[in-house]
Amino acid sequence: MEDFKNIAQAAKDASLDLMFETTERKNEALLKIAEKIEENKEKIFTANALDLKEAQSLVESGEITKSTYGRLKLDENKMRDMIQGIKDVANLPDPVGKILLKRELDEDLVLTKTSAPIGVIGVIFEARPDVISHITSLAFKSGNAVILKGGKESNNTNTTIFEIIKSALESLDSFNSNCVSLIKSRDDVKKMLEYDEYIDLIIPRGSNSLVKFIQNNTKIPVLGHAAGICTIFVDEYARKDYAENICIDAKIQYPTACNAVETILVHKNYPHTNELKEALAKAGVEIVENPEDYSFEYGEKKVSLLEVKSITEAVSHINKYGSGHTDSIITENAENAKKFMTSVDSAGVYHNASTRFADGFRYGFGAEVGISTNKTHARGPVGLDGLTIYKYYLEGRGQIVADYANGSKKFNHKDLKI
Amino acid sequence: MEDFKNIAQAAKDASLDLMFETTERKNEALLKIAEKIEENKEKIFTANALDLKEAQSLVESGEITKSTYGRLKLDENKMRDMIQGIKDVANLPDPVGKILLKRELDEDLVLTKTSAPIGVIGVIFEARPDVISHITSLAFKSGNAVILKGGKESNNTNTTIFEIIKSALESLDSFNSNCVSLIKSRDDVKKMLEYDEYIDLIIPRGSNSLVKFIQNNTKIPVLGHAAGICTIFVDEYARKDYAENICIDAKIQYPTACNAVETILVHKNYPHTNELKEALAKAGVEIVENPEDYSFEYGEKKVSLLEVKSITEAVSHINKYGSGHTDSIITENAENAKKFMTSVDSAGVYHNASTRFADGFRYGFGAEVGISTNKTHARGPVGLDGLTIYKYYLEGRGQIVADYANGSKKFNHKDLKI
Repeated sequence: MEDFKNIAQAAKDASLDLMFETTERKNEALLKIAEKIEENKEKIFTANALDLKEAQSLVESGEITKSTYGRLKLDENKMRDMIQGIKDVANLPDPVGKILLKRELDEDLVLTKTSAPIGVIGVIFEARPDVISHITSLAFKSGNAVILKGGKESNNTNTTIFEIIKSALESLDSFNSNCVSLIKSRDDVKKMLEYDEYIDLIIPRGSNSLVKFIQNNTKIPVLGHAAGICTIFVDEYARKDYAENICIDAKIQYPTACNAVETILVHKNYPHTNELKEALAKAGVEIVENPEDYSFEYGEKKVSLLEVKSITEAVSHINKYGSGHTDSIITENAENAKKFMTSVDSAGVYHNASTRFADGFRYGFGAEVGISTNKTHARGPVGLDGLTIYKYYLEGRGQIVADYANGSKKFNHKDLKI
Repeated sequence: MEDFKNIAQAAKDASLDLMFETTERKNEALLKIAEKIEENKEKIFTANALDLKEAQSLVESGEITKSTYGRLKLDENKMRDMIQGIKDVANLPDPVGKILLKRELDEDLVLTKTSAPIGVIGVIFEARPDVISHITSLAFKSGNAVILKGGKESNNTNTTIFEIIKSALESLDSFNSNCVSLIKSRDDVKKMLEYDEYIDLIIPRGSNSLVKFIQNNTKIPVLGHAAGICTIFVDEYARKDYAENICIDAKIQYPTACNAVETILVHKNYPHTNELKEALAKAGVEIVENPEDYSFEYGEKKVSLLEVKSITEAVSHINKYGSGHTDSIITENAENAKKFMTSVDSAGVYHNASTRFADGFRYGFGAEVGISTNKTHARGPVGLDGLTIYKYYLEGRGQIVADYANGSKKFNHKDLKI
C-alpha cells in the first residue's frame, strides 16, 4: 500500500503540471477517458456485478438499504449518461484563464486577475460509482488534480473505472496521470482530512451524515451541504393555484432531493389552508402538524405544516430551522416578496417558484459540482467556476514601491478593456 | 460576564437586520462613528496611556517587544488616519447588492445572482487598537456583523473605542447595535473558533504564530496568511538595474512587511551575481547563503540567496518553500516570464516588479481587508468584495419543475443585460 503522503505529493505535483495543459489537451484527455470507458464497459459491468452480488447479501442482512443498492447498480442507461456526461464537460467553456480584471496601476505596470485552478481536490463519495467520472471530468476541465475515495460497497466498480481513467491518461503524450488517484483505506481518509498542506478542497458526495462527519473533521474547506431543509411560505396574498402546484411539485417531484420542501408555513390569514392540505393529501403527501424537529429532512412524501402569524415569524422560522439552501414565498404582494427575499439568509430565495429549481443544470451552468450552503467561496448550485480561484499577474518594467511611497511616482489605477 | 452564545446569537440576529440597511444608512453609521471618535479622542488617548503604562513595564521585563509597544501606541497621526480611514470606507462603493448575473431560465422565470453579506465575522487581533475601527467599518460597509477580540495589552484602548462605536450606533434611529461586540476572555476566543453555527468567517490580524494558531484550531474559514515567504528569481536574462533595484526595494522598503522578499534565487548564468550581492550589502542587507530553513520569514534586513541551475529549479523551490503569497521573476525573456508566472502557484506572480506591490491600496481596491494565501474564496490582497458572498433570487409565476422534467416546457437560459 502506497503511503498517503506520497499520493498527496504526487497529486500536488500533477496539479502544478496541469496548469500548463491547454484547453485542447484537457478536452483531449476527457474524450480519451470517454472513449476508453465505452470500449471497456463490459469490464465495468462485470466489476459492478461483483459489487452487486456482495451488496445483495448486505441488503438481506439489513446492512445497506435497497436505495443504496439501487444507486450502486450501473445499467446501460447510467453507463450511457456517464459517457455522455464526460463528453458534455469537454464541450463546456474552460473556466480557467478567464480575465476577471485588467488594470493599469501606472504606466507599464499592468495588473491582471485571472481565473486559476484551485489545486488538489479530495472527493469522498458513497455507493454511486458514476460519481468518479463525473467529478474527475469537472476537476480536470478546471485544471485540478483529484484524490478519490469511494464507498467500499462499490470497490470493484470504482477500481475498474479508476484504472480505465488512469490508462486513458497514460495513453496521452506526457500527461501527468497522477492528477487522479484512488485511495481505499479508512486511514487514508483520515489523512486526507488532515493534510491541508496538500489538499485544497474536499467535495463529499453522499448522505447527510457523511457530509456532516467530514465538515466536523477537517479544516480544509468543504464544498457541499449536509441537510436540505427547504421551506415554502404561503403568504396571506398567495394565489391558490400557485400555492398548491408549487407545494406539491416541491415535495413529490423528487422527494429525496435536497431541494425538496420539508416545511410549509402558511399565513394565518391565507383563506385556502384547508384546500392546500387536501390537495397535498390527494397528491399522497403526509402532513405532520406538530413535528418534534423542524430541522429534520424527511426525504419522503412528508411535510411539516405550520401556521404563522406574520411574514416576520415565517422569516425567523426559516433562518432558525432552515439549512440556508432554498426557500420560496408564494404571494402576489411584491413588498412581502421583497421583504422575504431580502431577509431570508439562504443560497436561493424564490418568489412564486418551486424550490426544486435549485440545480446547476436548471440554472444553466452546464454542469453541477454540488450545491453549497457555505457562506464563503461558492453558494447555491455550483458550476465549474466553483472549482477555480484566481491569481494576480503583475507585469512591470522594473518598478519599485519606494518611488510611490516617496511620492516621486503616482498610481493611476486605470481599468483596461478585457 | 455575558455568555458567548448570547453574544453570538445577538450578532447573528443583527447581521440579518443589517441586510435591510441601505447604503445611505450604513454610510450614516460610519460617519457617525468617525464623528464620535473625533469627539472623544482625548478619552481614547487617556485609555491608551493606561495601556502604555502597563506595557512599559512589560517591555522592561521582556514580556513584550519594543515594536509591540510601538504598535500599541496611538498618537495624533494614527488617530487622524483612523478617523480618515472610516470616512474613506464610507466613500467606497457598496459591495453588497451588485448584480453578478441575470438570466431568464424561461419566460417569466428570472434568476438573479446578487452580492450579499457573509454574516458574522470574528476578528482576532493583537496590540494595534486601530484595527477595531478599520475592520469594523469594512464589515459594516459590506453588511456584516463583527465580534472583536483584541490583545490584552490594549484592553483599555479597545474597550474605549468599542464603547464609542457602540454609542454611535445606538444614537442612530433603530439601528441594531449588536452588529458589533467585543469579547475579552480567552475562553470566549475558544468558543468563537468553535461556534461555526454563528460565525461565518474569522479574520486574524497579528503575528504569524497567532494566525497559525487560529488556522489550526477552527473549521471556520480563516481569511489571511501566516508566513509571507516571497521570492525573487533573477533569471539569466535579467537586466542588471532591474535586478538590483527590485531586490533592494523588496527587502528594505519595509522589511517587516509580509510582501518583503525573503529569498533571492539567482540563475547560475546571470553574469552580475557579485554586483547584486554588493548592491544588497551596500543597502544594508545581510545575505544568508546557506540558511537552515528557506521557509523562515526574517522580517528584517536579511535575505537568503541561492544559485539555481534553471528556471524549473527556481519554480520548484518557490512552490516548495514559498508561502503562495507573491513571487517575482526578473527577466527580459518573455517566454521565461510566462513559464514562471504560469507555474508558480502563488496569489501574485510578478514580472520585473517589486513584490512590495502586493497590497489592496496599490491594486486600487480602495481598502484592504487583508492578504490571503487561501486557495478558495479570496486570494491575494482582499478588498471589500472579500467580505461578500452571493445569493440567488428566482422570480417566477408559479412555475414547477415537473413541467420541465416531462418536457412540456423547456428552459431557454437567456442572459439578460445587467
